[in-house]
Amino acid sequence: MADCFADIGFAKLDISRRERTGMPETIYCAGKTKEQLLGILKTFRDRKCSVLGTRCSPEQAAFVKDAGVTAEYDEVSRVITLAVGERYKLNGRIAVCTGGTADLPVAEEAAQVAEFFGAGVDRHFDVGITGLHRLLAKIEEIRKADIVITVAGMEGALASVIAGLVAAPVIAVPTSVGYGASFHGLSALLTMLNSCAEGISVVNIDNGFGAAVTACKMLRMLNNHD
Amino acid sequence: MADCFADIGFAKLDISRRERTGMPETIYCAGKTKEQLLGILKTFRDRKCSVLGTRCSPEQAAFVKDAGVTAEYDEVSRVITLAVGERYKLNGRIAVCTGGTADLPVAEEAAQVAEFFGAGVDRHFDVGITGLHRLLAKIEEIRKADIVITVAGMEGALASVIAGLVAAPVIAVPTSVGYGASFHGLSALLTMLNSCAEGISVVNIDNGFGAAVTACKMLRMLNNHD
Amino acid sequence: MADCFADIGFAKLDISRRERTGMPETIYCAGKTKEQLLGILKTFRDRKCSVLGTRCSPEQAAFVKDAGVTAEYDEVSRVITLAVGERYKLNGRIAVCTGGTADLPVAEEAAQVAEFFGAGVDRHFDVGITGLHRLLAKIEEIRKADIVITVAGMEGALASVIAGLVAAPVIAVPTSVGYGASFHGLSALLTMLNSCAEGISVVNIDNGFGAAVTACKMLRMLNNHD
Amino acid sequence: MADCFADIGFAKLDISRRERTGMPETIYCAGKTKEQLLGILKTFRDRKCSVLGTRCSPEQAAFVKDAGVTAEYDEVSRVITLAVGERYKLNGRIAVCTGGTADLPVAEEAAQVAEFFGAGVDRHFDVGITGLHRLLAKIEEIRKADIVITVAGMEGALASVIAGLVAAPVIAVPTSVGYGASFHGLSALLTMLNSCAEGISVVNIDNGFGAAVTACKMLRMLNNHD
Amino acid sequence: MADCFADIGFAKLDISRRERTGMPETIYCAGKTKEQLLGILKTFRDRKCSVLGTRCSPEQAAFVKDAGVTAEYDEVSRVITLAVGERYKLNGRIAVCTGGTADLPVAEEAAQVAEFFGAGVDRHFDVGITGLHRLLAKIEEIRKADIVITVAGMEGALASVIAGLVAAPVIAVPTSVGYGASFHGLSALLTMLNSCAEGISVVNIDNGFGAAVTACKMLRMLNNHD
Amino acid sequence: MADCFADIGFAKLDISRRERTGMPETIYCAGKTKEQLLGILKTFRDRKCSVLGTRCSPEQAAFVKDAGVTAEYDEVSRVITLAVGERYKLNGRIAVCTGGTADLPVAEEAAQVAEFFGAGVDRHFDVGITGLHRLLAKIEEIRKADIVITVAGMEGALASVIAGLVAAPVIAVPTSVGYGASFHGLSALLTMLNSCAEGISVVNIDNGFGAAVTACKMLRMLNNHD
Amino acid sequence: MADCFADIGFAKLDISRRERTGMPETIYCAGKTKEQLLGILKTFRDRKCSVLGTRCSPEQAAFVKDAGVTAEYDEVSRVITLAVGERYKLNGRIAVCTGGTADLPVAEEAAQVAEFFGAGVDRHFDVGITGLHRLLAKIEEIRKADIVITVAGMEGALASVIAGLVAAPVIAVPTSVGYGASFHGLSALLTMLNSCAEGISVVNIDNGFGAAVTACKMLRMLNNHD
Amino acid sequence: MADCFADIGFAKLDISRRERTGMPETIYCAGKTKEQLLGILKTFRDRKCSVLGTRCSPEQAAFVKDAGVTAEYDEVSRVITLAVGERYKLNGRIAVCTGGTADLPVAEEAAQVAEFFGAGVDRHFDVGITGLHRLLAKIEEIRKADIVITVAGMEGALASVIAGLVAAPVIAVPTSVGYGASFHGLSALLTMLNSCAEGISVVNIDNGFGAAVTACKMLRMLNNHD
Repeated sequence: MADCFADIGFAKLDISRRERTGMPETIYCAGKTKEQLLGILKTFRDRKCSVLGTRCSPEQAAFVKDAGVTAEYDEVSRVITLAVGERYKLNGRIAVCTGGTADLPVAEEAAQVAEFFGAGVDRHFDVGITGLHRLLAKIEEIRKADIVITVAGMEGALASVIAGLVAAPVIAVPTSVGYGASFHGLSALLTMLNSCAEGISVVNIDNGFGAAVTACKMLRMLNNHD
Repeated sequence: MADCFADIGFAKLDISRRERTGMPETIYCAGKTKEQLLGILKTFRDRKCSVLGTRCSPEQAAFVKDAGVTAEYDEVSRVITLAVGERYKLNGRIAVCTGGTADLPVAEEAAQVAEFFGAGVDRHFDVGITGLHRLLAKIEEIRKADIVITVAGMEGALASVIAGLVAAPVIAVPTSVGYGASFHGLSALLTMLNSCAEGISVVNIDNGFGAAVTACKMLRMLNNHD
Repeated sequence: MADCFADIGFAKLDISRRERTGMPETIYCAGKTKEQLLGILKTFRDRKCSVLGTRCSPEQAAFVKDAGVTAEYDEVSRVITLAVGERYKLNGRIAVCTGGTADLPVAEEAAQVAEFFGAGVDRHFDVGITGLHRLLAKIEEIRKADIVITVAGMEGALASVIAGLVAAPVIAVPTSVGYGASFHGLSALLTMLNSCAEGISVVNIDNGFGAAVTACKMLRMLNNHD
Repeated sequence: MADCFADIGFAKLDISRRERTGMPETIYCAGKTKEQLLGILKTFRDRKCSVLGTRCSPEQAAFVKDAGVTAEYDEVSRVITLAVGERYKLNGRIAVCTGGTADLPVAEEAAQVAEFFGAGVDRHFDVGITGLHRLLAKIEEIRKADIVITVAGMEGALASVIAGLVAAPVIAVPTSVGYGASFHGLSALLTMLNSCAEGISVVNIDNGFGAAVTACKMLRMLNNHD
Repeated sequence: MADCFADIGFAKLDISRRERTGMPETIYCAGKTKEQLLGILKTFRDRKCSVLGTRCSPEQAAFVKDAGVTAEYDEVSRVITLAVGERYKLNGRIAVCTGGTADLPVAEEAAQVAEFFGAGVDRHFDVGITGLHRLLAKIEEIRKADIVITVAGMEGALASVIAGLVAAPVIAVPTSVGYGASFHGLSALLTMLNSCAEGISVVNIDNGFGAAVTACKMLRMLNNHD
Repeated sequence: MADCFADIGFAKLDISRRERTGMPETIYCAGKTKEQLLGILKTFRDRKCSVLGTRCSPEQAAFVKDAGVTAEYDEVSRVITLAVGERYKLNGRIAVCTGGTADLPVAEEAAQVAEFFGAGVDRHFDVGITGLHRLLAKIEEIRKADIVITVAGMEGALASVIAGLVAAPVIAVPTSVGYGASFHGLSALLTMLNSCAEGISVVNIDNGFGAAVTACKMLRMLNNHD
Repeated sequence: MADCFADIGFAKLDISRRERTGMPETIYCAGKTKEQLLGILKTFRDRKCSVLGTRCSPEQAAFVKDAGVTAEYDEVSRVITLAVGERYKLNGRIAVCTGGTADLPVAEEAAQVAEFFGAGVDRHFDVGITGLHRLLAKIEEIRKADIVITVAGMEGALASVIAGLVAAPVIAVPTSVGYGASFHGLSALLTMLNSCAEGISVVNIDNGFGAAVTACKMLRMLNNHD
Repeated sequence: MADCFADIGFAKLDISRRERTGMPETIYCAGKTKEQLLGILKTFRDRKCSVLGTRCSPEQAAFVKDAGVTAEYDEVSRVITLAVGERYKLNGRIAVCTGGTADLPVAEEAAQVAEFFGAGVDRHFDVGITGLHRLLAKIEEIRKADIVITVAGMEGALASVIAGLVAAPVIAVPTSVGYGASFHGLSALLTMLNSCAEGISVVNIDNGFGAAVTACKMLRMLNNHD
């Protein structure tokens, strides 16, 4: 395996990542200047690599577009994508479930990232546990997924309830939705880490991206074992 | 209202509390010497007051009994009671629900305290949310209660699920059951405080006693309005 | 019980909640777009359901009004209400007490939500414990309430003092009022959870809404037992 | 699916869990009395169900054996198993990697649980990142695994380094190994949650069991898709 | 001022402290070996200096006595004193108030240290705020003190209530009494720091000694201004 | 003592506080509307009471002045004062010491409040411990004070060093000056609470006001004992 | 040694610091007014002292330049420098390594401060551990440095990996880069403090300045021992 | 460089570490069984490598000695050493300073580790800042050291004061000495991280070993540049 990278001064782009880890390089746009983001996108485009960026602000997206880079931008999830050549394709389906409307941006980040990486995604939004019948009405559909991503803030109990009802592994994403003693997502994070339901693993607060990547890595196993 | 108390040197016993707040004086036994506990119990006995103690160690209980005070002691809940004269009687019933076997001591503390104060108590133990069918099998019974006390450690999501299914107010008791990121009950406490289910209020970690007293104060309203 | 809901795409409105839990659906407006809020309110209006929203920003309220939905909006508490048909009616009265002027928005949220749900509310504002005579001057009046809601920030000791003086259950609402080591309400929250006064249960920081719902669920018991 | 359970008084055993979630019921032995544990094990044995218990103390294990239940007990991992009938069998292999010798009990819990559930397990112990050559010497072998479980305390950076080198999903288990500012595993937990490596999901501190179950649920996908 | 000290190898005893800061050297016995404590006490005795030690274990005290050093030891407060020559004498009186029986060891530490340093001390124990009449019955007496030390665990609201009722400065000592969300005294500490009552200053959790020293330094002003 | 107050609707002004606690009512302006602040100031003015407000924003101050209330406002400390009749007068002097320039606003709050209450104040600014000679050059002057207030952020060690050098009681004010692991003043707060120097008591982060009130209550003892 | 300082009212400039500690006075610009900063810079200029300021805002820098002080300002690192006379010169070289692009401002602060103090600096940016080959490609170069400064946010594992590969002491700078459970740099800080790699010492979050000063003090040893 | 290691089953000993990082392999004995420790020591002895172990319990040490391995054990610091062949030798001297007697075990760990690695060590114990004259009496001696290690618990201000008085780099070791709000060393750790004195870097709580290794790596620079 040739471990190479593109050195563009302020960054060393990991061109060989896909070969090594199975996933292409992605960009965490927050904390980068507009110019840096543009530079990175252009490098990938020029090398004919697809690339996806998360936490891209509307200002960054506009700057990139104005500079003539034809990336797609989704305002809800703040995901920016630059697709070059054939799309990725993964076997298996992922169910993305959310507790409430306010969790939508994180859930959409997960969904869009998974779709970019080639997974089939089914969205089950607003199936929070306080109206259990809403969840139970959907549970047979959720059970069909190979992997379930649960996105929830506040008390974050959605992952536990779903994990007790399905056979698939559950990836839990705590969100910073809430106030007071939610402590910016800490409450939901702890809930998910302490779940007595089995088969739950957890990613960082608001990290829809991480959940999607983990799920796609799991699905890739299917491709590998075909 | 005569606000009086019995001064026994190291403590000032609040003899008029029942008249003032509707609840008799109770004793938090932890942190008291055996001799102090005995002295307090004797004072109440001699004044013909019923009294209940929580967190009474087996050693304290044995010491009290050896000294000839005929109190009852429950080893699971660590509640000690000294009943004098007519028993208290409250209208209405309380359902005490627990997530798992390890929550039993706290749940029993709640149940026994509520019974001592005159409430009818129904125990629904081990109805944790990861096996939702166990809870759903019991839910009609739980719905009959006037108040529900939910006792749960680890992720503590039981209160949220039940509160979404019943009309009664729910008093949530986080327990210190768990390990690692449960942080001795902090996780369950935060879960309960952040519940998006309505009608939940929370007491301190492992405070079965406090939940029972709050529930009984609610039931007393029924007696008042009769 | 028919567990049904109205699916409006981004949200699944819990139309049957009132039948199931005794409380109508309510809306947490924070984190929703103006358009989402409007859509939800219209759905309820069209189904002839009363509905109440909390944490509604002035911008959201103006948008809703401009769109022709005749909701009422209170700027202090940020509560928005849409009353359809007969008003709710509960027996019993709730006393809402605050420690200081800065706690007013949270206290008003509690008061207005309770009034919307049909409870009688008595406001006792600025009876903080550092001027105990102000509280004692009001205590006989507070004692008449069936339930007391105490709202306090900073050290949050109001609940403890009142719970030692009244027979009613006390629901304590910590507020984020304060600075420095108040840690955005954590100090008041811990004070209330650790109260050695009996009969206190606690809701999330700044959660006047939750306190009101819990109180109203308690009062509903009275109606049930009539 | 028949959602049934065995009610043995203090517990409701989830007999149908395997059918529902793909994983059999397991027992968290900590916090249960010896008698409770024995009762649970006997119930499973009598119903011809295999069962596995974690955090079983030597005293509990001895009590169970003395009572004539022929369970196997591993002192390092504190796992107790009662195998009835045919063993479980899963396709795919799991690599369990540890940072240091002190992480061994947690790593062994993960390994033994995975083996009980039918997975093939390869142990790579003491490949901590401060002697990177030790890890690099093993990396080709680790790359063959379908899933990697990394177990590490102190700064817990093992997961990040490995996830940058392999294509498989990585399940990270922080351990409470360390002192001072490790805060009983909090440091390692945060490290793993904040990893900038992709494809990492995290379980509770010292929760080797949870990592193994999650991994086995992933492997079950392979069986399903065969 | 001659800044001198006695170097006894493992410690440098601050013989001139009294001249410099007005307070004699004192010893924090915890964490010292029995032999070290004995060595320190002997050095002071031989130099005809009075000295006081806090947190002295019964074992340390017994060792010192067995070695022939005639120190006085109080088992409740764990204070050990070695008085040489004339006793200290301060004008003014200190009131030491406690919330409950379990706070007694810390309160006694404060009281005994203050007495050793020459202050007059009035003990008002078990005047917790949940039985306000107990406190109000004593308040006129407390008002006579020049300084009030309040010792309280759990929610620690005693300082706030008293500071609203007296003109004297209040020194608040949080104690580690409590459980669950008291977090070993953190709750009481935060309560006291955030008090909206004026004139409260706070010392470390369980630091009765520190409160007494601060109070005595204040009283010394009176002597200075005579 | 007549415990009376002025009820102006949203607030109950504690007119008798001075008689009861020796200190006049003061106003915490933050969190109050401009109109509320104006109303409170006018009430005091009309009753011929001096009053002092802290954390008064420039906007609040301008609004008050524009409304014709002749209060004095200091921009650095954000203190607003309304002096009516004879000024307060206390015996004794207070030294206010700061670690660095950024602590100035808090130090000035302490100084101005103390001066308003009648104390003599000596300012010793920028005597932080990392340039110990700056402090030692001033120490003789500081030693003349009856009470020392130390104001410091970051590591907050100033109180410890000064308390080891002077005989006066030291009131320590942690400030939120700093970044990173200063955690908004938590670091300085903990330093001061854990000081091994004797005679230090602590107030809330950035609470210059509280330190001044405590100091003035101490000085009032001198007046009382005259 | 003459311990002298320049008293300019609001600050006491430590003119003799260089003689005493080997490092010149530096200025923490945050929290100072533009006028204060200008006054300090002028004082140093007039005394022919070089001086360096950190965390200087663009507004402060512009104000200083407009006032005719010819300081240099770097927008990335926010460092302002005023060089008078001969430049400092230190033997030895420092390698500054960063995990990602967002850590650049802190890394540049370290690099520029070290260069101002006379050290040779080699920058190795974006060598984060998730693309280990990028780091390994540079490691021989990094090994040539006398001291390595590692700057990393998120999980902060860069220091551990590098310290296991080089013989030089490593100074680790956690940054506040990240989100969610990074808790503003706390995660990276804990990682670095708990590293099992040897020879790492840590400075405050985002404290590039502190790392550079520590490194330069180490290099000064070389000069001393020449 | 040959990166080799000795694989002894449960551990992979890093035989080439000295060549690579300049420091020999060392052993963290806590969490290892007696048998594991013995096995590791024997492997090093047989390969003629010197080795040092920290946090070795008296029981571990006795077991090792009884097995015939002639290691030296120090009870205060809990350091065990096995010296084979020529002793290490470093130029330069390290001053180890402590705040109080209770910090001695950590200070001795630092001192003994540094001596084992060949450094000259000067011990300055009990020079805490509350008796500043004790420190100033020693400061000229401390100034002669090339590196200063400061060991302090409680408020941990020693590092700041010393760093303001010496030119050498200061390595600060917080200790867990203290109680209450010291939070097991957190207070001292934060103090040291937030020091406004320059040239301080910090290691983990109670990590005397880490301070010594860092110091020795610095001194090795001197050897390298000879």
